Amino acid sequence: MTREQIPGLSINTATTRRQWTLPQAAENYARLGAAGIAPWRDQIAACGLAHAVRAIRDSGLAVTGVCRGGMFTATDKAGFEASHEENRRAIEEAHELGAACLVLVCGGLPGSSRDIDGARAMVADGIARLLPEATAAGVSLAIEPLHPMYAADRNCINTLDQALQLCGRIDPAPGAHALGVALDVYHVWWDPGLRSSIEGMDPRRLLAFHICDWRVPTRDVLVDRGLMGDGVIDLEDIARMVAAKGFAGLPEVEIFSDELWNRDPEDLVKQCLDRSLGVRRALGKGEPGKGMQ
Amino acid sequence: MTREQIPGLSINTATTRRQWTLPQAAENYARLGAAGIAPWRDQIAACGLAHAVRAIRDSGLAVTGVCRGGMFTATDKAGFEASHEENRRAIEEAHELGAACLVLVCGGLPGSSRDIDGARAMVADGIARLLPEATAAGVSLAIEPLHPMYAADRNCINTLDQALQLCGRIDPAPGAHALGVALDVYHVWWDPGLRSSIEGMDPRRLLAFHICDWRVPTRDVLVDRGLMGDGVIDLEDIARMVAAKGFAGLPEVEIFSDELWNRDPEDLVKQCLDRSLGVRRALGKGEPGKGMQ
Repeated sequence: MTREQIPGLSINTATTRRQWTLPQAAENYARLGAAGIAPWRDQIAACGLAHAVRAIRDSGLAVTGVCRGGMFTATDKAGFEASHEENRRAIEEAHELGAACLVLVCGGLPGSSRDIDGARAMVADGIARLLPEATAAGVSLAIEPLHPMYAADRNCINTLDQALQLCGRIDPAPGAHALGVALDVYHVWWDPGLRSSIEGMDPRRLLAFHICDWRVPTRDVLVDRGLMGDGVIDLEDIARMVAAKGFAGLPEVEIFSDELWNRDPEDLVKQCLDRSLGVRRALGKGEPGKGMQ
Repeated sequence: MTREQIPGLSINTATTRRQWTLPQAAENYARLGAAGIAPWRDQIAACGLAHAVRAIRDSGLAVTGVCRGGMFTATDKAGFEASHEENRRAIEEAHELGAACLVLVCGGLPGSSRDIDGARAMVADGIARLLPEATAAGVSLAIEPLHPMYAADRNCINTLDQALQLCGRIDPAPGAHALGVALDVYHVWWDPGLRSSIEGMDPRRLLAFHICDWRVPTRDVLVDRGLMGDGVIDLEDIARMVAAKGFAGLPEVEIFSDELWNRDPEDLVKQCLDRSLGVRRALGKGEPGKGMQ
């Protein structure tokens, strides 16, 4: 593409999960003008993998990620093994769907543990064990650092810098199907080290770029994310940082919102397309030769 | 004191703000066995500064901090000036109360701003302007990094490392009444850089140590902090890091909790004393010659 081209938008199915099944989402996202989709595994399971693959192939949408693998932290060895087996199935699904990556939400403190260092070590072990299988399947693994408010119950990987250090330790020489990161503005926008972490990262680590917004006030820890423009994140500034890295994927809207789940999904998707224009323009202005695919 | 002595406990008046006025809190904390108090300014204003000074002096409690100064971010010059004047009054109150520090909660994004770098620059300007007046009054200023979930609406200083870098830039050679930090476990427990930040800090920067706990799930962003032991923070581990720095103050319980505000305050204070024993023992085992005052 040329330098000025505006990239399309991918939509994560969590955004319309209450309104649409996965096949409905695929059909409607494509019809309304989206260019990609990122399905959640429970929605894949609900229609069956073969149906999901067919629906997405028929829609013509790119798959920017499968959500999610991870959850490596467990209270015992059996739990750790079960997590590995589950992640193998997730890799298989990502492979079948031709996904750009499998997103890893790594798990919080297992059981009643207070040992966050231990949880982080367990995550490193789990990813190291999974990576060869992902590589063999041609699937990239994207560690998604989650906002520190989720450190206890969802993910003990909480900053981009921490995720990148983990990548560097486990996979020091990233290849075609690397271990990398999924960068979601909701989780990292506050980080005083964000700019330098992005500037310093190997471009091959940047596997996904998720957008939404941070509402003020945030009325719920889990389900009050905002539509782009309804919050305080300088989305275009972050998009420019990402563009400067030559990010070649589609930006992906992922919004968990009790409010938006009660809205008409067609209007919502149209708004996602509209409200992401600034971000997409910023991404389209990436360095020549390093622009969108 | 000897190496084995267990330090007392300070209680932040926010913990019982719905149940007790400041004079009631001072009297009851002392009677129930606390060693310190940290008043909020609205509670000082409610009884008047002179009455607050007298009540706390009569109680015999140490004042581990005054909450709070800061809020440097403003939409215009008039707002910035008003913040400075308010902070001058806060310094005066901290001076009159003989407080170990004035805690600074620095302010979030002003108005509808999305410029977090700009907000952070405003905070640095505001502290730099305030420090000479604090020093002249013999009052230490303690920047309190707040959890990233408060970056937008309360405080754009969100990690210990960020706060320490700010201290280093504004006040490179800390004296007797330094610029430093208030370390609250609730805000920093998740930080993968916490241990190295504490290990690397100048001990003179550590002006206050606040404890409570992180509940899982956290049902409210603002008012669902837990009593020590009711959450997942490894309090004793952090207390050992703080002890290794030779922290010489009293640990301070500060809990914002809609649930605990509906509890009998006397029972609550007794539980604070009981549930802080592990932390206080860990602090009492600090390096000889660097222990509690």
